[in-house]
Amino acid sequence: MEPVLFYGVPQGCSFGSIVALEWLGQPYRLARINMPEDMQSDLYARFNPVRETPVLLLENGLSLSESAAILSNIAARAPDRLGYPAGSVEHERLNQMLAFLNTTFFAAFSPLWAAYEMAENPPVQRVLRDQGRALVAKAHAQLDAMLEGRDWLVGSRRSVADAYLSGLARWAQYHKAVDQAAYPNLSRLLRKLDSDPAVIFARAIEAGEQPQGSGSFRGHVTLEELLPKLAA
Amino acid sequence: MEPVLFYGVPQGCSFGSIVALEWLGQPYRLARINMPEDMQSDLYARFNPVRETPVLLLENGLSLSESAAILSNIAARAPDRLGYPAGSVEHERLNQMLAFLNTTFFAAFSPLWAAYEMAENPPVQRVLRDQGRALVAKAHAQLDAMLEGRDWLVGSRRSVADAYLSGLARWAQYHKAVDQAAYPNLSRLLRKLDSDPAVIFARAIEAGEQPQGSGSFRGHVTLEELLPKLAA
Repeated sequence: MEPVLFYGVPQGCSFGSIVALEWLGQPYRLARINMPEDMQSDLYARFNPVRETPVLLLENGLSLSESAAILSNIAARAPDRLGYPAGSVEHERLNQMLAFLNTTFFAAFSPLWAAYEMAENPPVQRVLRDQGRALVAKAHAQLDAMLEGRDWLVGSRRSVADAYLSGLARWAQYHKAVDQAAYPNLSRLLRKLDSDPAVIFARAIEAGEQPQGSGSFRGHVTLEELLPKLAA
Repeated sequence: MEPVLFYGVPQGCSFGSIVALEWLGQPYRLARINMPEDMQSDLYARFNPVRETPVLLLENGLSLSESAAILSNIAARAPDRLGYPAGSVEHERLNQMLAFLNTTFFAAFSPLWAAYEMAENPPVQRVLRDQGRALVAKAHAQLDAMLEGRDWLVGSRRSVADAYLSGLARWAQYHKAVDQAAYPNLSRLLRKLDSDPAVIFARAIEAGEQPQGSGSFRGHVTLEELLPKLAA
């Protein structure tokens, strides 16, 4: 079977992996995971014991977790379009950028998600929200500086790093954490991504619609159907 | 010049990159960074605008940041000993493990570091410490389960993932966050790493001693000396 991406809704960071698969343009399927309830099942733990999304179930039955690993796998399928050849400067920079997004940029939102998900506790939520906003502002400023004079995050064309960013950056609006217009280089890239057909496709998928996309999407599949494909 | 690793003291996560370089056994140098003060200089920002450690200054003058990218670079220098060939199952698993350690495992300690570094504020510090201990316990349980029946984190021999773990896992003791003996698979690996010559070397380096090591270490160098080597 084609590779299958398990994407989480709502607001999953797996959004970026959908975008990357659309950009790749090779056949793939999707499995929809309602967070958090679907991840708590024993069935889900068979695919990912850490109970997170995304997961990419590969053609050989390997269940690959962690966004950075999944995006590296997708990039390696098109090193001339979405990644860069091993050993090149851009390959090192892509690894660096994926790790930055996966740690500093992603983690900046953690206090905001913690405040969002916890039982009502205004004093603690206030501390967490202040902390989160400060971290998100700092991570935005760092990314904005990296984008000075650049059209894309790595090299002179789009890569899986830009796809990943498209899924993470929307959290700033979701949590009303910062005004992204204050970061002109970053805003320029986000506007471009915002009108990208793959990003529009991923938004429609999350909304439960049946979008057209690039034509590579072969439909949804359930975890029950996938279990026999999973390698031991 | 040989590659130069910038390592942070005290308790830097760069510890694991020193271990990986010792395991690699190819000539390298070190630059010592006192955290946080040395990272705040304009000079440091020339090498890493994000002002974090580690950094690996490559032979071609590229200044590579982010542990996952640095460890992938080191692994690619010995894919038959510290990494795995691109396209192999173990290569995918190594990317996944590095990302897990770099996000979930590392981030579990963030509230503990925040409590440690902040101005005296017992009620907030108590909330942060409780949150951190719970996250560290969960990450330990997840890693312990992944290590069931295994001697190393990925494949059947050591890799850069084990080197990285050696630097992160010691934080559990430093913050008295969990009793690692409660995680038997993980403890087994940590005991093995604890007596590894490269880990003993890295501890001595951090302590400011002049250890022997594998013989690949070519001495310390300062950022001032390295600035002319930095690629534009």
